Amino acid sequence: MSDAAHMAHALSLGRRGLGRVWPNPAVGCVLVRDGRIVGRGWTQPGGRPHAETVALAQAGDLANGATAYVTLEPCAHHGQTPPCAEALVAAGVARVVTAIEDPDPRVAGRGHAILREAGIDVATGVLAEDALRDQAGFLSRVLRARPMLTLKLATSLDGRIATASGESRWITGPDARRAVHAMRMSHDAVLVGAGTARADDPRLTVRDMGAVRQPVRVIAARKLDLPEYGALAASVTDGPLWLLHGSEAAPARIEAWRARGAECISVPVASGFLDAGRTLHTLGERGITRVFCEGGGSYAASLLGAGLVDRLVTISAGVALGAEGQPALGALGVDVLAEAPRFRLVRTRRLGGDVLAEWDLAAP
Amino acid sequence: MSDAAHMAHALSLGRRGLGRVWPNPAVGCVLVRDGRIVGRGWTQPGGRPHAETVALAQAGDLANGATAYVTLEPCAHHGQTPPCAEALVAAGVARVVTAIEDPDPRVAGRGHAILREAGIDVATGVLAEDALRDQAGFLSRVLRARPMLTLKLATSLDGRIATASGESRWITGPDARRAVHAMRMSHDAVLVGAGTARADDPRLTVRDMGAVRQPVRVIAARKLDLPEYGALAASVTDGPLWLLHGSEAAPARIEAWRARGAECISVPVASGFLDAGRTLHTLGERGITRVFCEGGGSYAASLLGAGLVDRLVTISAGVALGAEGQPALGALGVDVLAEAPRFRLVRTRRLGGDVLAEWDLAAP
Repeated sequence: MSDAAHMAHALSLGRRGLGRVWPNPAVGCVLVRDGRIVGRGWTQPGGRPHAETVALAQAGDLANGATAYVTLEPCAHHGQTPPCAEALVAAGVARVVTAIEDPDPRVAGRGHAILREAGIDVATGVLAEDALRDQAGFLSRVLRARPMLTLKLATSLDGRIATASGESRWITGPDARRAVHAMRMSHDAVLVGAGTARADDPRLTVRDMGAVRQPVRVIAARKLDLPEYGALAASVTDGPLWLLHGSEAAPARIEAWRARGAECISVPVASGFLDAGRTLHTLGERGITRVFCEGGGSYAASLLGAGLVDRLVTISAGVALGAEGQPALGALGVDVLAEAPRFRLVRTRRLGGDVLAEWDLAAP
Repeated sequence: MSDAAHMAHALSLGRRGLGRVWPNPAVGCVLVRDGRIVGRGWTQPGGRPHAETVALAQAGDLANGATAYVTLEPCAHHGQTPPCAEALVAAGVARVVTAIEDPDPRVAGRGHAILREAGIDVATGVLAEDALRDQAGFLSRVLRARPMLTLKLATSLDGRIATASGESRWITGPDARRAVHAMRMSHDAVLVGAGTARADDPRLTVRDMGAVRQPVRVIAARKLDLPEYGALAASVTDGPLWLLHGSEAAPARIEAWRARGAECISVPVASGFLDAGRTLHTLGERGITRVFCEGGGSYAASLLGAGLVDRLVTISAGVALGAEGQPALGALGVDVLAEAPRFRLVRTRRLGGDVLAEWDLAAP
């Protein structure tokens, strides 16, 4: 097996942690000795133990002389536990292969340096493109001080998310809805605008996927004008609920939601809306690395218009709703095609009777 | 090789004729003797010679004792040439395998009967589902007195076909545009509403696909209010151009377009629009079996609302245009989701940077 094949294995392990390990990166590690896999690990829910710790514990004495494949440069800082770079040295690992360097200023090459200083052969950059994509949320938080943002648009084949009267259950099929729960699960937080929270009163929890660490539910509600006796209010204790509001939210509402168990967080307002950039910055400050936005159309358009959408997931159902239907995206102010936000197709596939496509923001 | 494998081969040959053989069906034929293919044929441009004639000529004496795989029941009526059923008998074919019976009242089982009466072993129903899909246009014209209608929607990822100012070149990429030309080529006629003809002034011809029989260009223009000095007017002689108009079209306009070489055809008007059902009926009367509609949004919605769209082709580009953009479909009058037109996903694939999906009208 090549370095790339072992790294692909480590990457697939690392992905298991996405959505469950914030503010830490979701890392995977495979230990190979004499061509045999002697340890496998990935960052555990909550962010600890780290992938290397798990894999080393599994390998025991067999780690001595092994090659470690790690999807991100091993950490170099003393936190709650000793740094992974030192643990790899102590275990007698002979060679370390990593995909990318960790830009966290507490690491930033020092993990690799510790290994090299101990005489370990270090190679990096193996499957770096894949690792950069997997670590996009962690890297975004470290480098841009905000989480990565994925926007989901589940629409009719003519781009509508509901009939004129607001009926939206169900445009897409059961396979698509299940896939959406899996996508929620792989993000740290699920975000919707207040309009959707009022119209659909969604619980936004991950359901029917086995026991999971629920993503943080975030609602951008400038005035905190949310239904007080609906499904959302009844499910406050089903998982974390953060309500982002402006300074004009009535103190009584803030108190009432806090009493139910929600966290109320004030965000600056700009031109009548919660400032989109500050919203993401606030989530990043609290450790969120991956945000999954589920609408509605106006809120999605405001994020897109602000250039904050990094990834798009479109799910198109085989139903036509016509021009009276509610648009998937509100006004964007795009006059000229050349100015419209462009996305690059990553992959597409059938999802039951619907079409799923994943897009990345195209480089300008 | 099984009967199904030979029939799949014959079906793939038959598809070569789609869009080039109206009003005849696009048939494929494979002759097999002692496990060896001795003849292959498909309906030639213009509808003659038939697939069986071509395959028999290729096989010569080797047709004697062979099995003929034909995608549609061989014809039984004397037209410009003797019927294919008799030609198969005369060639000494030992066995005939067909996919479906021809519902044309001049055939309707008589082709199979001629073969059986001559002592030939006849099996039918092999890959019937595939053949029904390939022959949908021919069958629609025979059984419903109208062609099959495919609607193409090439949109932004939020279902828009142009910016507010009407800019639409180009939303989709070059691969998608080339695929659209291939789709035009596989239909007998390309249809657009007058609004699109005025806004985009398209030529609607098949280009850069080698020498082809151009599909008939059909424009539904109640008042015949079309640009008289644009690309369409300049390309009248590039292929047939049929202008469908109502009784209120000014005679001077009719004369002017006739003088340019276009055919002007009067169609009844219903509630202020060219009657959609009568429009298709008129095309069917003239021999058209497969129609490819390319918009615009209002015209597409009128066809969809009338239940006349049999197939949909959606092409989604990775660009967001927002709610000010022009909708892919005009108003449909859908209040309740259960009443919205539903389509079944046939297949989906990547087309350069865009997503292509093909849908069939779902059974009610």
